[in-house]
Amino acid sequence: MYDLVIIGGATSGLTAGIYAARKKLNAVILTKEIGGQNLQTENIENFPGFEKISGPELTEKMKKQVQNYGLQIKSGTEVKSISKIDDFFEIVTNTPDKIKTKSIIIATGKKHKKLSIPGEKKFENKGVVYCSICDAPLFGGKDVVVAGSGNSGLGSAFDLLKYANKIYIIGRAEKVKGDEFLQEKLKKDDKVVFITSADVKEIKGSDFVEEVVYLDKKSGKEKSLKAQGVFVNIGWLPSSSFLKNFVKLNEYGEIIVDPKTNETSIKGVFAAGDVTDVKYKQCVIAAGEGAKAALSAYDYLKNR
Amino acid sequence: MYDLVIIGGATSGLTAGIYAARKKLNAVILTKEIGGQNLQTENIENFPGFEKISGPELTEKMKKQVQNYGLQIKSGTEVKSISKIDDFFEIVTNTPDKIKTKSIIIATGKKHKKLSIPGEKKFENKGVVYCSICDAPLFGGKDVVVAGSGNSGLGSAFDLLKYANKIYIIGRAEKVKGDEFLQEKLKKDDKVVFITSADVKEIKGSDFVEEVVYLDKKSGKEKSLKAQGVFVNIGWLPSSSFLKNFVKLNEYGEIIVDPKTNETSIKGVFAAGDVTDVKYKQCVIAAGEGAKAALSAYDYLKNR
Repeated sequence: MYDLVIIGGATSGLTAGIYAARKKLNAVILTKEIGGQNLQTENIENFPGFEKISGPELTEKMKKQVQNYGLQIKSGTEVKSISKIDDFFEIVTNTPDKIKTKSIIIATGKKHKKLSIPGEKKFENKGVVYCSICDAPLFGGKDVVVAGSGNSGLGSAFDLLKYANKIYIIGRAEKVKGDEFLQEKLKKDDKVVFITSADVKEIKGSDFVEEVVYLDKKSGKEKSLKAQGVFVNIGWLPSSSFLKNFVKLNEYGEIIVDPKTNETSIKGVFAAGDVTDVKYKQCVIAAGEGAKAALSAYDYLKNR
Repeated sequence: MYDLVIIGGATSGLTAGIYAARKKLNAVILTKEIGGQNLQTENIENFPGFEKISGPELTEKMKKQVQNYGLQIKSGTEVKSISKIDDFFEIVTNTPDKIKTKSIIIATGKKHKKLSIPGEKKFENKGVVYCSICDAPLFGGKDVVVAGSGNSGLGSAFDLLKYANKIYIIGRAEKVKGDEFLQEKLKKDDKVVFITSADVKEIKGSDFVEEVVYLDKKSGKEKSLKAQGVFVNIGWLPSSSFLKNFVKLNEYGEIIVDPKTNETSIKGVFAAGDVTDVKYKQCVIAAGEGAKAALSAYDYLKNR
C-alpha cells in the first residue's frame, strides 16, 4: 500500500515527486513516458533559472533530482482505471499487478489536438506532423504551413527557421495570438508569412503533402498554397479519458481542482498541471502546481 | 506611463518579469533588493531543474534572464504608497519621481517574525540572528539554540552542522514540523538535540548571549540551556504594510488573491508569491504564481 501514487512523469508529476520524497512519503510515479510535452520543445526560455534549456535536458535534470531521493519512477506504465475501495484506491494499469494507495496525484498533462480535416490522417508522418522539435529538421529547403498562431505555432515556426524555405503561419483569429517577443523575431525573417482569419480546410497530395487549402474568412474565398509540410499546433486535449466517471471534469475534459489545494472532487485525489483547469498552461506554473498538490497530499495523509 | 510595474525582485517578481518581457509589455521591476529570502538560503534542493543550488546563485540566474530581455530592474527602490487616479495607478517611492502605470503586480514576499521576548532585541547580532546562511559560520564550536522546528528551523540547524558544537532545536509543537527528509538527516548527528512542546521565554547574557530559558509545556517547568547563539526561525510576516487601505488583506496581513488569476480586490492590481494568501510558501510555487500574475496582467491590459 503506497501513501501516494503520482500518475504522470512530466514537469508537474516530477515536481510533485521531489516534494513527496522530501516528505518521506512512500510514493511512486507511474507514467507512460518521462517528460511529456517538454520532450517536444527545443528551447525553453521562460523557466526561471535557465536562460535557455531544451525540454529533454530540463526533463533529465528533474528526473535525476527525483531519483536521487530514491523515489521510483515506473515508466511504460499506462493507467487504465482507478476505483475507490473502502478508504484507499486501487489502480489498474497495463501491467498485471493492481496498485493500492492512500492518495493520488494526477498529472497526466495534455496532447496535441488534431485538425480533423480531409488529408490530415492520410498524410500523417508524410508531411503532416505535430512536433516541431522532432520533425523540423526533416523539412530542409521545403515550404511548410504551420496551422496555429498561438505560442506553440510560433514556436514551431521558430524551430523551422533554420530549415524551411518558406513558412506560412495560418491562424484562425484576426490577430496572431502568441507572445509578441516571438512574433517580432519571426516578422524580421523574410521566409515567414502570417495568414490570419483563415481556416485550414484540406491537405492534398499524392504520396506526400503537396498542397494546403484554406478558407480566407474575410473574403469568404478558398485559397491554396503549395507546401510539403503541415505542422499542426492548434491546441491541446487533456489526457483525462481514463478518469471519466471518477473525478469531475469540465466541458473541455480538464480536471476541476480547488485552485488553493489542488484537490479534485474526490477526497484523497489531487491533480496538477495541464490536465487540470488551471488557467494558464506553462511549464513553471505546472511545476508550482505539482509542489502544491504534493504538499496538499501530505497534509491529507497526516490528518487521515 | 508603464503598462506594468512589478513591485518586488525575488523569485515571484523576477518570474513575472520574464513573462512580462516576453509579452513585450512596457514594464519595470521596483525592489529594495534583488533576491529576497533566497539570499538567506544556502542550499535549495527542491527547485525543479537544480539538484542543489544556493539561493544567491538562483537569484543571479533569474536576474540575468530578466535583464537579457531588456527589462529594467530598479533596485534600492522602496514603495511607500499606491493610489488609483482615474484609470491608472500612481506609485510613491523613496525616490523623487512618481511612477504611473496601468497595472501592478505586488510580489514583496515576507520577512522573519521575531520572538518578542526579553533579551531578543538586546542581543540582536550579539548572538541572536535570523539568517543561518549569513551567520552560521560565526558559531564555530559554539552551542546554539534554533527556535522553530519547521523547515526554516531545520534548514538553519542543517547549515549549523558544519560549525556548531551543539544544536538545540526548540519547537512549540508536540512534533517536529519540517520535512522528514531533513529531520532524518539531523537525527543522525549526535550534536543535534530536539526539544518539542517548548516555548523560548528569555535570552540572557552580559555582552553576548549566554543562556536561553524555555518553558517545557509538558511539565510546566522553566528550563535553561547554556548557549552562545539563538537562531530565530519561527515564521514570517508578509511585507504588506504599505498596502493597508489599498488592497484587501487577510488577518495575517497577506494579500487576498483569486487563486486562479492572482487578482487582488482592485482591478488591475495583481499579487503573487509569499506576500499573498497562497497556501504553501515555496520557491517554485512563488515562481508559478509570478508567471500566472504576469499572464493575468497581460490579459487585463489587452482588454482594457
